[in-house]
Amino acid sequence: MVSFESDYNNGAHPVVLQHLIETNASQSQSYGFDEWSEQARAKIRKACGCPDADIFFLVGGTQANATVIDGMLASYEGVIAVQTAHINVHESGAVEASGHKVIPLPSHGGKMDAGELEAWLKAFHADPTLEHMVIPGMVYITFPTELGSVYSAKEIEAILSVCRRYDLRLFIDGARLGYGLASSECDFDLPWLARHCDAFYIGGTKVGTLCGEAVVFPRAGAPRHFMNIVKRHGALLAKSRLAGVQFDALFTDNLYLHIAKHAIDMAMKMRKLFTDAGIPLRPSCTNQQFVELSNVQMKQIMEHVLFETWEPIDEEHTLCRFVTSWATTNNDLNALETALKLLNP
Amino acid sequence: MVSFESDYNNGAHPVVLQHLIETNASQSQSYGFDEWSEQARAKIRKACGCPDADIFFLVGGTQANATVIDGMLASYEGVIAVQTAHINVHESGAVEASGHKVIPLPSHGGKMDAGELEAWLKAFHADPTLEHMVIPGMVYITFPTELGSVYSAKEIEAILSVCRRYDLRLFIDGARLGYGLASSECDFDLPWLARHCDAFYIGGTKVGTLCGEAVVFPRAGAPRHFMNIVKRHGALLAKSRLAGVQFDALFTDNLYLHIAKHAIDMAMKMRKLFTDAGIPLRPSCTNQQFVELSNVQMKQIMEHVLFETWEPIDEEHTLCRFVTSWATTNNDLNALETALKLLNP
Amino acid sequence: MVSFESDYNNGAHPVVLQHLIETNASQSQSYGFDEWSEQARAKIRKACGCPDADIFFLVGGTQANATVIDGMLASYEGVIAVQTAHINVHESGAVEASGHKVIPLPSHGGKMDAGELEAWLKAFHADPTLEHMVIPGMVYITFPTELGSVYSAKEIEAILSVCRRYDLRLFIDGARLGYGLASSECDFDLPWLARHCDAFYIGGTKVGTLCGEAVVFPRAGAPRHFMNIVKRHGALLAKSRLAGVQFDALFTDNLYLHIAKHAIDMAMKMRKLFTDAGIPLRPSCTNQQFVELSNVQMKQIMEHVLFETWEPIDEEHTLCRFVTSWATTNNDLNALETALKLLNP
Amino acid sequence: MVSFESDYNNGAHPVVLQHLIETNASQSQSYGFDEWSEQARAKIRKACGCPDADIFFLVGGTQANATVIDGMLASYEGVIAVQTAHINVHESGAVEASGHKVIPLPSHGGKMDAGELEAWLKAFHADPTLEHMVIPGMVYITFPTELGSVYSAKEIEAILSVCRRYDLRLFIDGARLGYGLASSECDFDLPWLARHCDAFYIGGTKVGTLCGEAVVFPRAGAPRHFMNIVKRHGALLAKSRLAGVQFDALFTDNLYLHIAKHAIDMAMKMRKLFTDAGIPLRPSCTNQQFVELSNVQMKQIMEHVLFETWEPIDEEHTLCRFVTSWATTNNDLNALETALKLLNP
Repeated sequence: MVSFESDYNNGAHPVVLQHLIETNASQSQSYGFDEWSEQARAKIRKACGCPDADIFFLVGGTQANATVIDGMLASYEGVIAVQTAHINVHESGAVEASGHKVIPLPSHGGKMDAGELEAWLKAFHADPTLEHMVIPGMVYITFPTELGSVYSAKEIEAILSVCRRYDLRLFIDGARLGYGLASSECDFDLPWLARHCDAFYIGGTKVGTLCGEAVVFPRAGAPRHFMNIVKRHGALLAKSRLAGVQFDALFTDNLYLHIAKHAIDMAMKMRKLFTDAGIPLRPSCTNQQFVELSNVQMKQIMEHVLFETWEPIDEEHTLCRFVTSWATTNNDLNALETALKLLNP
Repeated sequence: MVSFESDYNNGAHPVVLQHLIETNASQSQSYGFDEWSEQARAKIRKACGCPDADIFFLVGGTQANATVIDGMLASYEGVIAVQTAHINVHESGAVEASGHKVIPLPSHGGKMDAGELEAWLKAFHADPTLEHMVIPGMVYITFPTELGSVYSAKEIEAILSVCRRYDLRLFIDGARLGYGLASSECDFDLPWLARHCDAFYIGGTKVGTLCGEAVVFPRAGAPRHFMNIVKRHGALLAKSRLAGVQFDALFTDNLYLHIAKHAIDMAMKMRKLFTDAGIPLRPSCTNQQFVELSNVQMKQIMEHVLFETWEPIDEEHTLCRFVTSWATTNNDLNALETALKLLNP
Repeated sequence: MVSFESDYNNGAHPVVLQHLIETNASQSQSYGFDEWSEQARAKIRKACGCPDADIFFLVGGTQANATVIDGMLASYEGVIAVQTAHINVHESGAVEASGHKVIPLPSHGGKMDAGELEAWLKAFHADPTLEHMVIPGMVYITFPTELGSVYSAKEIEAILSVCRRYDLRLFIDGARLGYGLASSECDFDLPWLARHCDAFYIGGTKVGTLCGEAVVFPRAGAPRHFMNIVKRHGALLAKSRLAGVQFDALFTDNLYLHIAKHAIDMAMKMRKLFTDAGIPLRPSCTNQQFVELSNVQMKQIMEHVLFETWEPIDEEHTLCRFVTSWATTNNDLNALETALKLLNP
Repeated sequence: MVSFESDYNNGAHPVVLQHLIETNASQSQSYGFDEWSEQARAKIRKACGCPDADIFFLVGGTQANATVIDGMLASYEGVIAVQTAHINVHESGAVEASGHKVIPLPSHGGKMDAGELEAWLKAFHADPTLEHMVIPGMVYITFPTELGSVYSAKEIEAILSVCRRYDLRLFIDGARLGYGLASSECDFDLPWLARHCDAFYIGGTKVGTLCGEAVVFPRAGAPRHFMNIVKRHGALLAKSRLAGVQFDALFTDNLYLHIAKHAIDMAMKMRKLFTDAGIPLRPSCTNQQFVELSNVQMKQIMEHVLFETWEPIDEEHTLCRFVTSWATTNNDLNALETALKLLNP
């Protein structure tokens, strides 16, 4: 059955797989020193407009978050994130496992509000009991967010500006980075993003690879002994070629953004299918679509295509998530369209 | 100047000090094996009606919280507490330092609502992504709360009942336990409390000692190797007599509740002084009183007695905290009364 | 240049790669619930003779060690290992990062001596200051060891017997498991190993895959909520098919042991080349060979083939490591033979 | 029965107790801001010849070690100590609990050898697998050592010099500092010590107080946000006056060194008693004496005075520890002398 459950239900993009096949017989160094990792780093530096960037390939998103956050914070510092942030909800406490508190702020459709951030920091620094509190050391945001929204350049600038004033590092979780950059509402590009944070990562797992996230410290500035930190987190790939080869493919001929764009096109077509069927969706310009289905509709559609239930809306309605990816085809959408047409009025 | 800033501005209660003086010349074992610690444990077991209780003396509240929570939880488990809980706000991340997430629920005047707790747990266990979330292992409440409120027996029974249904341990932070038990709104006693949780501690620092909290596991059941856990947290007193002697005094002739009752009497007289002066207070039946002062009043009173500002109410008003303790005298209250009388109308 | 540097310089074994290619277009569940992971688990259970085994696929060895050790130990427990153990030397403190001490015992060619283990435990339990010490909770051994040696069945039985008497879990790091099982000195098989420990893992990265280690709890008994523990360690593969497909291939038609056997054959031929050239080797029946070269020889050979220096022997000699793998060919050995023949007398 | 078991079997020195009594009725600030802590800090700065020193009062030795080490190290750094070091053996893994490996070097009568330290560091930095190892960030030594020995000025200079060359901090555990400084073999004073390390602490618990260790960062330079770090470790005393008052007494009129000297005098008299009785002792110039008793002697002496068995020497002999302190009297020694005279020939 066609699945819209997630953006990691597929294998590798054919071009990525092909590169794995072609390079398989070569011998190479390990632990990040293979030639493809070197090449991929060079290409990513170019794509980001960051000739000095420090780049590390890790395996997955939770691992990248936990390692970067732990690496950039002092032991006693915490990380500020919105309530709905992946690190606050869906990483089984990987950040706390390294001793760091996640300090939650309100989520606005998945986004942090720079004004609220500043107000919180102002109150924190005015608090006479500050020495009994967790010192914030970093702001963590996701781009795009877990709820499919994207920050505007202005919003990120505002957050970065608060970070600068309060001496906080800004880290952007880009597990779905491509899908954010390719969305119609995004008003900046990769080099702009790289100039507006202290660290971010380019998610591969959800955008065409079998695994792998490229952690970027745009202006050099990786934490001292970051390789040891990565190893200490169990995050150092022995056969680093696995990540290197895949990112080498993703950043050749602009494949990364190309396939991300495809997913967004599919998502927008999908929105139209729902809208045409009179079914309401939450706003989302990226590859995750949140649809408000009656429980009857939900069951009927489930007989034809796979998707995830997200959360109950009320006793008779459920918010459901439909996800496209680089692998979504027009045929997949046709299956959905058919399912929608079969709904009882 | 008379201080109502906190309940740890004073030395030891004279009876406690006297016991330290009298026992000082004796030699004794260390690390919890001294005779006074043994005696104090016996007296506390009796006061709690728990002949099998495991009892450990730690130095302070944050240390007790961090050690007990870490000791009772598996490494991957988190602890549920209200937003305003001491462990969530004022312990510099001591719980997270051991790798445990504090999972915040709404605070109702400092208290957790059993219904909200149950709803949260129900949603958690229905969540298909549960394997990506922090497993809750414990509920932490404070008695009395940080905001001066006390749970009723019915409220604690409701929370405990939810804990039992969801296999959570219930831990009660009693840093100010005496002041809660002595309050007019408290409808249970120490043995009842001991029967309605899995662990709690009897705060000494704020109720008559120089330091020391008695951690009680009421039905034996201290975590295995708890002494090693205490030592690993840097919380094992070499000269354990320091805590033992003080708690021996506190639990002789009912001193603990006696001096707590005095603080409550003083707090109720204090409330009357404010009320008579037409100044509003937040509800509180314990030794912490939260007073809504105009900023002008605040400055005027500050010239006569010491107290803490708690948080801004609006641009012209501030919530202020006035605390009584076993050491508060009628003379202290007279000083406050005088200050209130001098307020400009 | 031909490389004998390590057993992770090559890509995937062709059969493993072929399976990745063939399955790439299929959609599948994630986080361990894909069909290939299910299949691979079934095949591994069969190969181990453990119908009830709990099996988890992690990415790499350090990650597997850190996650399993943390998962099986209480927070305050430590793990006993020999001085030269990978977890004690080459994992950047990943075990300590979760709060567990590595308690070192002497290494005998990489192996732990059951008698020394027992003597240490006896002394530990007789120590009156035991409550101030790290409680040992587990014994960790590697099979084969980091120095190329293998335990006999009798040696493992002796260690397991001590573990049982002292209530310690036994965990076997099998990063190179296949090469150990295939060695001529190994007097047991996989099912026997599975019956003689509490947990072990089957290394894929060094034996034919691009990544992946199969953690096996042979008699069910995975730590409670182990998936959350894996996620908390950043070790949960989103596209678990990546590991599942590769292990499915490795455990089809006995490929795993077959390719391991090849590496051992190559290693034994390599030994003969050195011996014939009059160059001494340390004893090793597995795929890692430790060769005592004069510094002059070392430089001359380095011009023809790649290998690692291990440690200085004296001012004029260096211990060097030559490693074979499933990918080593007779041509590779010919290159080494040529290099040895060119050595100045 | 007279006890030579440890230096924390007694209460507070009478002068210290008297100061607690005299100050008990005064109100004071908490969390380190009380007047006595301020005064004590000033006096300690003067005694150390360090006008800029940052000084913090913690409760006990394990707590001080764990907090200072964690505060001064980056998360991924380890601490080098000798095998017999307190942090390596007798702190239940408190250092590892914060994620830091203790890297053991050989112990020479409790002391570290600067040459061995340098050799280890040289080998470490030459190791090509350095990125897979724990980075050493600190050297920890005890003064005097756990075995009663003291470093000479030259030995400490040599260690410090290695630390400077390899960018390591030097931390000296002074749980028994007074007894070291007062020993006849010590060829430096407190100001010299303060100039030759990055942090140390002045033990109170074993030298006259009921609790309390004064952590000194001699040239300012306390780790950033050290108060939060202390709080995070559960090590911040609410009623900091308890430590402040006691150290105020200890550093008035040179009491600290005065009472330490007394303990040393008693220890030297004790040595003579054993020597006169023909019983061999290990070398020790401080307040801990290690005596080689036959098991028959051991039992006979135990009937008259208390002491600790340290470790078996052989089947018929046991190393036993006899400890003096500020509280040891000539009468105590007389009791020992009597016991020795009663030994069967």
